Amino acid sequence: MDFEALLSRDARVMRSSLIRQLTGLVGQPDIISFAAGSPNAQMFPHAKFRQILEHLIAREGGQMFQYSVTKGNPRLINAVGERDRVTKGIAVSSKESLLVSGSQQGLDFVARVLLDPGDAVFVETPSYIGATAAFENFRSRVCAVECDQEGMDLDHLASRVAACRTEGRPCKLIYVIPNFQNPAGSVWSQDRRRELYDFASREGLLIFEDDAYGELYFDGMDPRLLRPIKALDQTGHVIYMSTFSKILAPGLRVAWIHGPEEVTQRIEYCKETGDLCTSTVSQRIILEFLERGWMREQGESVRSFYTAKAQAMQRSLESHFGEFARWRAARGGLFQWLSLPEGVDALEVFRASLAEDKVAFIPGAPFFAEGGGANTLRLSFSNVKDENIEIGLSRLSRRIRRSLP
Amino acid sequence: MDFEALLSRDARVMRSSLIRQLTGLVGQPDIISFAAGSPNAQMFPHAKFRQILEHLIAREGGQMFQYSVTKGNPRLINAVGERDRVTKGIAVSSKESLLVSGSQQGLDFVARVLLDPGDAVFVETPSYIGATAAFENFRSRVCAVECDQEGMDLDHLASRVAACRTEGRPCKLIYVIPNFQNPAGSVWSQDRRRELYDFASREGLLIFEDDAYGELYFDGMDPRLLRPIKALDQTGHVIYMSTFSKILAPGLRVAWIHGPEEVTQRIEYCKETGDLCTSTVSQRIILEFLERGWMREQGESVRSFYTAKAQAMQRSLESHFGEFARWRAARGGLFQWLSLPEGVDALEVFRASLAEDKVAFIPGAPFFAEGGGANTLRLSFSNVKDENIEIGLSRLSRRIRRSLP
Repeated sequence: MDFEALLSRDARVMRSSLIRQLTGLVGQPDIISFAAGSPNAQMFPHAKFRQILEHLIAREGGQMFQYSVTKGNPRLINAVGERDRVTKGIAVSSKESLLVSGSQQGLDFVARVLLDPGDAVFVETPSYIGATAAFENFRSRVCAVECDQEGMDLDHLASRVAACRTEGRPCKLIYVIPNFQNPAGSVWSQDRRRELYDFASREGLLIFEDDAYGELYFDGMDPRLLRPIKALDQTGHVIYMSTFSKILAPGLRVAWIHGPEEVTQRIEYCKETGDLCTSTVSQRIILEFLERGWMREQGESVRSFYTAKAQAMQRSLESHFGEFARWRAARGGLFQWLSLPEGVDALEVFRASLAEDKVAFIPGAPFFAEGGGANTLRLSFSNVKDENIEIGLSRLSRRIRRSLP
Repeated sequence: MDFEALLSRDARVMRSSLIRQLTGLVGQPDIISFAAGSPNAQMFPHAKFRQILEHLIAREGGQMFQYSVTKGNPRLINAVGERDRVTKGIAVSSKESLLVSGSQQGLDFVARVLLDPGDAVFVETPSYIGATAAFENFRSRVCAVECDQEGMDLDHLASRVAACRTEGRPCKLIYVIPNFQNPAGSVWSQDRRRELYDFASREGLLIFEDDAYGELYFDGMDPRLLRPIKALDQTGHVIYMSTFSKILAPGLRVAWIHGPEEVTQRIEYCKETGDLCTSTVSQRIILEFLERGWMREQGESVRSFYTAKAQAMQRSLESHFGEFARWRAARGGLFQWLSLPEGVDALEVFRASLAEDKVAFIPGAPFFAEGGGANTLRLSFSNVKDENIEIGLSRLSRRIRRSLP
């Protein structure tokens, strides 16, 4: 049977990402892996979840496991909105917000609601591959925009938008991760956020702001520097998304979106035929967790855990990588980004390092939507024991030295 | 800001279904509602879930709340495959199977993987609106095929396929619910299943078999009559889908698909950018439930509960509707389908009945993908107390009598 002929045009271009293929290789227990993108399961408040589940199931019985509303539990939507108002300065009504089954679903639905094949979407260089892959699966044109230390280079953005328009290509969306970006760990300046917002409003483009990591700031980082672009939004030009995956637990699969109602309404239609509703159990666990006031303590313990992990990594990087690599110390999030000298191919290093040193990481190139970045790599400190951070980075440094030009 | 101009072509045609709008009206507590499509929460084994959760969280801690594999927990996939082999005669390898976040996600992903705008998909008359809406959201052409008491009229199917091909329209998918269909409650004969399979193989079409209700057969129904089309499949022409929503609990959001690997592989790519993975918590609860051998008892108690509900509805229908309505008693599932005399408009009856009698149901017309069925309606017995079944149907009968021509 000729299945290929039966596939949709979208399905014919779908691929599994290189990163997924690489992480498939690093599952063995004797590997020291800086590859995983996941938060550390020790930080998931499972004892509290257990307590909540006992309480809720005893009180609510089977209703805990019934279908729920497509756009999400209204009390949870309100609680999330209120939290974002207080801590991030975001002002939205519940009509502008909805819950989705994890950020990845939000990426997929936003893409689906906005992008036709060939439409242009602008992303940072590098950018999150789960986002660029979602956009590419709708056959949109992902344009990588250069970045400097303050964020996206807006001159480059403007020239790329203009070039796309000259080609007759509809320009719709600018996807950015201004806080502790995956993979680069970068933080946008507040000025650059304002300038991007002004640019988008002027040009009639939407900003899709992914704030998965904003609450994971390390000791010494002033959270006022992390205020989202959405806090500036008076005109409905910003679709904001965040998630409980990093601050609470990813296996619950709950994220949220604040956007202009014209967009969130369509996302709700998308969700109606897309998965009907998010796990009722997960939503109830999270709502109860918020209502008990446990998020503040949870945030503090997560932040201090990752601060310590990142510091351990900094110490080892300084001992072993100072002579030949460049990096800026991560100030939050889960990742440390590293640039090796030009000419070193991180994918080749990855293969040798995994096979001979049993050390894994993620080569940076797949995060560059239009190529480049062969000499970069992403190190996650989230799931590596402190002593293994030192051992792994020491081995990795020796491996890289052999590849130096 | 002109949001309309920024929307994708798919998003511009997305609508909330009429049924969703109607069910939004019937939430008040004093309404006797035969409208709900949901199973009865009394049947969700919450005490067992609680016991499982205590056990698993104590044993596994945070890992219970970590990300999981995109295609689903491998042990759960194997357990589901083994169960379908033993109880339904389906022979598949784990490569051909994956888990999705509820059947609705399966509908969405199968549509996305196969259907381009304008492609033809063939459905029963009537058919499940969650499916036809998912197909329509990809702008495919949904063709309603006539049915008789044994299933789809295959002559009509053949003529519609031929007509679409004459128009140059790609024909890809035949979507059917052979067991206790939502909404009509119909059960296909085993002969008709075989004939459809032969037709699809001959014509190079895929069958999408939705078996959400197959395990909900009532007393007196021989389950061998429910053997799925997938049990016949030697050639990979059948995509089979079932769910834990009706037999266990829908708020967990877990369903499964067995299909040709060429298709399930693409669905996995779709899920990778679509929601990354299904709720880890839900998958672990269900796996433990299966491994403890609790499904047999659960199935028996669910079947006997709905048997009694359906019998209560039959008694009331016979007392109040025998003179003017036609129906075949449901032999499984959650729904009783009813035909009123030609000329009676069930949507008008719905409006009057809800406003004046505080009785709700679902008019049948929205289930007819290409129009018709104005005189039909769907009654759910799942969530109505026995005494209210009698009260509600007695009121509804009086209301309808006034509309008789």
